[in-house]
Amino acid sequence: MFEPPVQRLVDELARLPGIGRKSAQRLAFYLLNAEEADAVRLADAITSMRREVRLCSRCYNVTAEEECSICRDFRRDTAVVCVVERAQDIPVIERTGEFSGRYHVLGGAISPIEGIGPDQLRARELLDRVDAENVTEVIVAANPTLEGDATAMFLARLLKPLGVTVTRLASGLPVGGDLDYADEITLGRALSGRREL
Amino acid sequence: MFEPPVQRLVDELARLPGIGRKSAQRLAFYLLNAEEADAVRLADAITSMRREVRLCSRCYNVTAEEECSICRDFRRDTAVVCVVERAQDIPVIERTGEFSGRYHVLGGAISPIEGIGPDQLRARELLDRVDAENVTEVIVAANPTLEGDATAMFLARLLKPLGVTVTRLASGLPVGGDLDYADEITLGRALSGRREL
Repeated sequence: MFEPPVQRLVDELARLPGIGRKSAQRLAFYLLNAEEADAVRLADAITSMRREVRLCSRCYNVTAEEECSICRDFRRDTAVVCVVERAQDIPVIERTGEFSGRYHVLGGAISPIEGIGPDQLRARELLDRVDAENVTEVIVAANPTLEGDATAMFLARLLKPLGVTVTRLASGLPVGGDLDYADEITLGRALSGRREL
Repeated sequence: MFEPPVQRLVDELARLPGIGRKSAQRLAFYLLNAEEADAVRLADAITSMRREVRLCSRCYNVTAEEECSICRDFRRDTAVVCVVERAQDIPVIERTGEFSGRYHVLGGAISPIEGIGPDQLRARELLDRVDAENVTEVIVAANPTLEGDATAMFLARLLKPLGVTVTRLASGLPVGGDLDYADEITLGRALSGRREL
């Protein structure tokens, strides 16, 4: 419908998740009317990200180096490893400022429905690290979902025989939340996980 | 927070209209995990769109040629010109299949609040075309807003003295809509614009 170079961009933008045809058109015309430099910077950011980024050889976080900045940081505690499903979960935990160990990106969670079993995850690599890096605690920060729970159970069975403490992030009420709005499963977990003051 | 090449892409994506930080992160990681070819195609589509696209020398539609495909189409009626605010409005009208004339992209609508007066629009260029192309009717397809109305009034005052018929798209109830849901201004216009059957 649009002139070919514009239509091509609309088509490419519409392939992105969460971007419909209408948004794609709006974005394409924004990029058409934006400063040339702004449009070029976006295109460059995409290509250079693809060119420069690879997976950390230790934890599978994204990085521009052989190892990611967290694994390279000698001040981090190497005895504690936090297991996350995806690399984008790492900055979320970093922002809390409460964790000073290293990470391990599993690459997903166990999900029979989606056909993801332990073999599709980087569990073997975690086992090797636990051994090689003298890890004493593995914190499973998989999402608080059925899949995340199954993954945590699996990792606990795998790692406990090696004498590693395996923990899971607490489930419960979100801070600042309202009891009224909590679903019963979350509330149930908050109850069973209650702590003495 | 992310490794530099990823953070750079997140920042660039977050500059796009309607894309917040969270969406930008999601898109960046989508592009990180997508097929290399898909990511490259998007970057190429942006740069080649910027390189190839310019404004039609006649109607200011976007085009990859000297004149846009509509102006080049000798089957189109040159005596009727449809005035739109922006180039992206053209495909919307084309999709109706009801218009066989040419277009003129005004570049916006008169808006005292945003400081857009007739001089910021391509009204002079429209006047020249009316003269040079023997235009007999100008259909003002500016948006049905206060600004669009002001623009239509301005163009009517400008063009009527030249003997040109100036028309405006009808306002009224959207087809398939429900009377219950129509706002009073739209309903008022539908009433005053009622047609005999």
